Amino acid sequence: MAETAAQEFQARLGQVAEATEHMLDRLLSDKALPGETVRPAHFLGAVRYASLGGGKRLRPFLLVESARLFGIETEGVLRAGAALEMIHCYSLVHDDLPALDNDDLRRGRPTTHKAYDEATAILVGDALLTYAFDVTADPATDPDPAIRAALVLALARAAGIGNMVGGQVMDLEAEVSQKPHTAEHVIQLQSMKTGALLHYAVEAGAIFARADDKARAALSRYGRALGAAFQVADDILDVEADEAALGKRAGKDADRNKATLVAALGLDAARKRRDALAQEAISALDPFPQHRAAILKEAARFAVARKN
Amino acid sequence: MAETAAQEFQARLGQVAEATEHMLDRLLSDKALPGETVRPAHFLGAVRYASLGGGKRLRPFLLVESARLFGIETEGVLRAGAALEMIHCYSLVHDDLPALDNDDLRRGRPTTHKAYDEATAILVGDALLTYAFDVTADPATDPDPAIRAALVLALARAAGIGNMVGGQVMDLEAEVSQKPHTAEHVIQLQSMKTGALLHYAVEAGAIFARADDKARAALSRYGRALGAAFQVADDILDVEADEAALGKRAGKDADRNKATLVAALGLDAARKRRDALAQEAISALDPFPQHRAAILKEAARFAVARKN
Repeated sequence: MAETAAQEFQARLGQVAEATEHMLDRLLSDKALPGETVRPAHFLGAVRYASLGGGKRLRPFLLVESARLFGIETEGVLRAGAALEMIHCYSLVHDDLPALDNDDLRRGRPTTHKAYDEATAILVGDALLTYAFDVTADPATDPDPAIRAALVLALARAAGIGNMVGGQVMDLEAEVSQKPHTAEHVIQLQSMKTGALLHYAVEAGAIFARADDKARAALSRYGRALGAAFQVADDILDVEADEAALGKRAGKDADRNKATLVAALGLDAARKRRDALAQEAISALDPFPQHRAAILKEAARFAVARKN
Repeated sequence: MAETAAQEFQARLGQVAEATEHMLDRLLSDKALPGETVRPAHFLGAVRYASLGGGKRLRPFLLVESARLFGIETEGVLRAGAALEMIHCYSLVHDDLPALDNDDLRRGRPTTHKAYDEATAILVGDALLTYAFDVTADPATDPDPAIRAALVLALARAAGIGNMVGGQVMDLEAEVSQKPHTAEHVIQLQSMKTGALLHYAVEAGAIFARADDKARAALSRYGRALGAAFQVADDILDVEADEAALGKRAGKDADRNKATLVAALGLDAARKRRDALAQEAISALDPFPQHRAAILKEAARFAVARKN
C-alpha cells in the first residue's frame, strides 16, 4: 500500500509537470492576446527560457492535487497552476541577478541574465510576474469572477511585501548580518520566502472548490506544515551534500551566514523538526477521505525523503 | 469658460494627487494585512521612498475622472488609482536601474537604487507590482468581484509582455540599434510603453461604471489619443528644453538614438500630430454630457500645453 501510494504520487507528479509544461508553452506563445499590441520575439524567447523545460513543478502539483481533493479537475486549475509557477520562476530569475545571489547556473543551465543579459532578466521577471495575474484573472481560469478575484488576492498577498518579497529581503539582510540567526527568525523568514507560495497552492484548491471553513483550515494547516518541512529538508540536504562531497560539516550556506535551521538548531534537531512537520501535514488531512487525500499525504512524505 | 475649465482641471488634478498620496500612504503602512506575516521595516521605507511624495499622479487622475464621468466617486476608485500608480512607480524604479537606463536622479531626488542599493530597488519594484494586484483584487476596491477581476485582467494586460514591459524591451533595443526609427515603429513602441497604462486608466473608469459598449469605445478612443498625444508632447518638450538650454537642436534622446517621433517626423510634423491627437481625444468625448466631460477634455489640452 505504501509503495503503491508512492508510485502513484510519482506518476501524478510527472503528469502534472508535463501538463504544466504544455500550459506554459501555450500561454507563452507568440500570439498576442486581445488588448496586447505585440509580444517582442527575442524577449518572448527569454521569458520562455526562464520558465519552460525544468523543475519538478511542485507548486502546480500541489494546486492541482488540492483541487482534485474536492473532485475538481478543470483546465482552469491547470492555468492557475501555471500562473503560480510563473511567480516561482520570476522569483528565481530576480534572485539569481548579480545584485542579489549572483548565480551563474540554475539546474545546470546558465541563469537568465547569463544566457541573455541583466536588463532582459529584470524585464523577464517583471513580465512573468505580471502575466501570472493576467492568467489568473482571465475568465478561462474559472467562470465565476468571485473565484478569480479571490485567487488573485491570495496569490498577490503570498508573493508580496508581507511574504515572498519580504522574505527575500530578510534573507539578504541575514546574509550580511554578523549575528547568528535564532530558530524563530529563520522559521519566520522561510515561511515568508518559500512557505507562503506553497501555502497558496493548497489554498487555491480550496478556493476553486468553494470549500467550507473547516476544510479550508485543514488544508491551510497542511500547507503551512508542508512548506516548513520542505524548507528544513532543503537546509538538511545542503549540509548532507556538503558532508558527502567534502567530508566535513561546513556548507556553502554556513559560510555565507545564511539563515538556515541546521545552523540555528543543529542537524539532529533539524531532522526531528522536519519529520514532525511532515507528520503534522499528514495528520492535517485526516478529515478528508483517505482515497482522496493519499496523494497529498504522499507529497509530505516526499518532501522529507527526497534526495534533491 | 475656457479659463474656468482650465482652473477646475488644475484644482481637480491637485485634489486627486493629494488623495492618491494619502491612499498610498495608508496602503503602505507598517501594519501587516490578513495573510501577511510582517512587512520588513527598512524595506517598507524603500517602497515608500519609491512611491510617495512626487509626480502629477496623472494616471490616478485619469482613472478617478473617468469613473466620475459616470457619476462614480468611491474610495474603491481611489484604491484602483493608487494601484495603477504603483505599477507606474515600479516601472520607473526598474527602468532607472544600471542595467537599463542607469539614471541617478528622478524628479531631483536620487533614484531608488542610489538612495538604497540595486538589490533593494529590484525588490521594491517587485513589491509594488505585486501589491498593485492585491489592492485591485481586494473587496474594498469594489463589492462586485466581476469588476475587480476585470480590473485586474485589464491592468495586467496593459502592464505586461504585450504592452508596457514589451514596449520597454523595444525601447532598449531601439537605443542600441544603428538604424533610424520609422514613425510607425515609434508610434507602436510608445503606445505599448506608455499608452497602454494611460488607456487602462480610462478603461478602469468604464469598468467601475459597467459602461455600455458605446461609452466604453468612446472612452477607449479618448485614452488612446490622449496617450499618444502625451508621448509626442514629451518628445517635443525634450527637444525644446535642449534648444532653450543649449541653443542648438540636439537632444539627449537624439544622441542615444532614442526612438522619438521628433526624430522620425521632424519637429513641425510632430507638433501637428500632437495637436491633432489632442483634438481627437477631445472629440471622442462628444457623446458624453459636456458638464461631465469638461475636465477630461481639459486634460487633453493640458497634455499638449504643459511645459514639463
